[in-house]
Amino acid sequence: MSEKQLTKKELLAKAEKPAEDALKLHPFYEGKIQIVPKCSIWDFSAFGVWYTPGVAASCRAIADDPAESFKQTNRANTIAVVSDGTRVLGLGDIGPAAGQPVMEGKALLFKYLGGVDAVPLSIGLTDSRPSAEEIINFVKLIQPSFGGINLEDISKPKCYKVLETLRNDPEITIPVWHDDAQGTASVVTAGVIGAAKHVGKELDQIKVAMLGVGAANTRTAYVLESAGVPLKNIIMADSKGIITKDRPDIIEGKDYDTFKYDLAQKTNPEGKTGDFGVATEGADVMISASKSEPGTVKPEWISNMASDSIVFACANPLPEIYPWDAKEAGARVMGTGRSDFDNQINNSLGFPGIFRGTLDVNASTITDEMCVAAAQAIADIAIKKGLRDDYVIPTMDDWEIFPYVASKVGMKAIEQGVARKVYEEDELFKMAQERIKYARDLTKSMMDTGFIKPKI
Amino acid sequence: MSEKQLTKKELLAKAEKPAEDALKLHPFYEGKIQIVPKCSIWDFSAFGVWYTPGVAASCRAIADDPAESFKQTNRANTIAVVSDGTRVLGLGDIGPAAGQPVMEGKALLFKYLGGVDAVPLSIGLTDSRPSAEEIINFVKLIQPSFGGINLEDISKPKCYKVLETLRNDPEITIPVWHDDAQGTASVVTAGVIGAAKHVGKELDQIKVAMLGVGAANTRTAYVLESAGVPLKNIIMADSKGIITKDRPDIIEGKDYDTFKYDLAQKTNPEGKTGDFGVATEGADVMISASKSEPGTVKPEWISNMASDSIVFACANPLPEIYPWDAKEAGARVMGTGRSDFDNQINNSLGFPGIFRGTLDVNASTITDEMCVAAAQAIADIAIKKGLRDDYVIPTMDDWEIFPYVASKVGMKAIEQGVARKVYEEDELFKMAQERIKYARDLTKSMMDTGFIKPKI
Repeated sequence: MSEKQLTKKELLAKAEKPAEDALKLHPFYEGKIQIVPKCSIWDFSAFGVWYTPGVAASCRAIADDPAESFKQTNRANTIAVVSDGTRVLGLGDIGPAAGQPVMEGKALLFKYLGGVDAVPLSIGLTDSRPSAEEIINFVKLIQPSFGGINLEDISKPKCYKVLETLRNDPEITIPVWHDDAQGTASVVTAGVIGAAKHVGKELDQIKVAMLGVGAANTRTAYVLESAGVPLKNIIMADSKGIITKDRPDIIEGKDYDTFKYDLAQKTNPEGKTGDFGVATEGADVMISASKSEPGTVKPEWISNMASDSIVFACANPLPEIYPWDAKEAGARVMGTGRSDFDNQINNSLGFPGIFRGTLDVNASTITDEMCVAAAQAIADIAIKKGLRDDYVIPTMDDWEIFPYVASKVGMKAIEQGVARKVYEEDELFKMAQERIKYARDLTKSMMDTGFIKPKI
Repeated sequence: MSEKQLTKKELLAKAEKPAEDALKLHPFYEGKIQIVPKCSIWDFSAFGVWYTPGVAASCRAIADDPAESFKQTNRANTIAVVSDGTRVLGLGDIGPAAGQPVMEGKALLFKYLGGVDAVPLSIGLTDSRPSAEEIINFVKLIQPSFGGINLEDISKPKCYKVLETLRNDPEITIPVWHDDAQGTASVVTAGVIGAAKHVGKELDQIKVAMLGVGAANTRTAYVLESAGVPLKNIIMADSKGIITKDRPDIIEGKDYDTFKYDLAQKTNPEGKTGDFGVATEGADVMISASKSEPGTVKPEWISNMASDSIVFACANPLPEIYPWDAKEAGARVMGTGRSDFDNQINNSLGFPGIFRGTLDVNASTITDEMCVAAAQAIADIAIKKGLRDDYVIPTMDDWEIFPYVASKVGMKAIEQGVARKVYEEDELFKMAQERIKYARDLTKSMMDTGFIKPKI
């Protein structure tokens, strides 16, 4: 057995370790998050304030003025993570109960990285998945309890309909966000900004090949455009090959997937056809958000890219090609969605800070411009720290990312007039920093004092 | 101004203080509860276990075996508190946003007194309240994320339909409980057991007059019956006076309020008619669950009761008669729903321990027999400590109530075959005690270390 083969084996073994740990540690801790007081319980008379009879005064205050609910309840810092479990990570339609570990993990990240209280709500009946209308109605029903909604792991095109309907419904006055679309788009864009700068290419010049035309890549294409990459420099492919303006299935599916139709009109102006390998010829950047199976991206599709090529293989839990294989095929910069590999292109870098900033200014929505502001802020951190082939995007433990992103997102919301509270940038940064530091310090304190047991 | 008038004034001022504090302290703490980790975050590689890629293994385990969701997620210790805000405390239909301070307070009590993680979900659209069918469907949708459901502050008869439908739906495999009915009934019954013993009267001999035929008193009548008070010894009255088997509105409303119809057949066998004062003549116990307005219960309705009379005026936030007025009218034992008066007859004594025991044995439902077991257990604590006129039921700070109730409720569930996990009574007591102690100790630690600020 050659040394190189051994290395691959070792890398594969390393890649399987988190799964073994997850199966053992989730039952050990009986889940990941819990609900605890944030108010003083000075003695038992406190319950006469927090519950009956005192609490009635807070209820009446909200009944008199609905805006009071952002002061008298947890709402100002609490969001819901809503999923129907129809497209969980790269695992597909495993259903709400099976998707819940991801939603609880998301809530853990929201608090630890963003200081945001997030309630994981995986929804569905025993034998069927909720329709778009049912998810929309569900979100409308829970609105009074939350300051924002994070949609998660909902299959397309249902996710488009849910998001667009809720964002355009005048009865919805809190931000609704689809993390697999807007969140991933923000972070991929941050990676492209950092990587392009590192290899010395300009955003308005780079050619981009994208594999997968799902919620993530669809939104990424638009956010890349907002960040300066012309759509005409992008070629996208799905399981049937490169998308073109005259592909019959796309024209027929126009109402079913309007975004795919729109992108088919605006990308690939030369009308190239064929498999994804045609799209990658001479491309500077490859972004795949496709099947969670190494081998989905072929080495020869990387070999035929331009020099100093950038490859982001984003499927989870397994990327479309392993990093060592991509590097061997010639990729200069290689990123995946995994936290145990270099250049993690994962929405965890985005949503905690983006929601932190959104809630801090009590914004009514999260615009694409707020996404671009977040992408630029994330890239700024990596640039400041010094770009390298294996560091074109910050890691999650560069925790100053999150308050910085929060302040930039909050300022953009204020600039665009969607914020209901106004601050200076340094105030926003400081507020966000304090809240995130609180979450991190509290976790550390709980570990130090034994309220969180050491792992087995 | 006589000394007596001054005392009343002082008592009234004291009664208003919690409301003032609530209005000031809710905004100070920005709500009452927060979400924090319960798992170790040993370093940033932990996120590769708790989130992608490792978490996918936990998802797959649940997809293969749904019962795994009680091991791989928070579900085993997490319930939802669901309300539409249509009957919040004694405030009436103030809507979901305005009801949320109560639901968050409930979640605080669930954790601090019962070690149960409870998610407050106040639901409703902007301009309408959800129908019974919509609430039923909502609960069915969120089932995959929770180990139990606590329905709260839903108006009748909607609340009956929601509870009965969900309890009888074979697709619902987690306990669904209506705290204003079953919870209040358990605690009122505990109070009656303790007070009757204190004044030396037997349950099968006492005469009971009940004002209000809503969800609370309706269920209380049935649970009292299970505890040994014959329905024929009970007389109930609503706003139209005493209910009788031939009252036309009750016969006409048979399908609308089947429980009221049923109780009208089984109580008041002598067919007494008239206002509530007729019902209290010679009664040993008066229980009111009516209008939150002192003066609703008239002093002369107490004066005409039997000697050693027991009066429980349960409306919140204000009782139907103030304790000092009831005592003046001749009540020997007087209780209210308020934590700042003696003999608090409040469901807070019940639900934390009842749900603790239910979750610890992973019961599929909460039966009336489990309610009676809880009532007897609560009364046992007061009896053990020594009954007095002003102590016929324990106070919330007798915190040993909760693990004791939990163990008794869990054992009853095991005995009735509705438990999915089996333990010995002392094991159940110890498990419950540990979890509740954890919640209390953690809160204290957070207050000591400044993670919870001192109140202003």
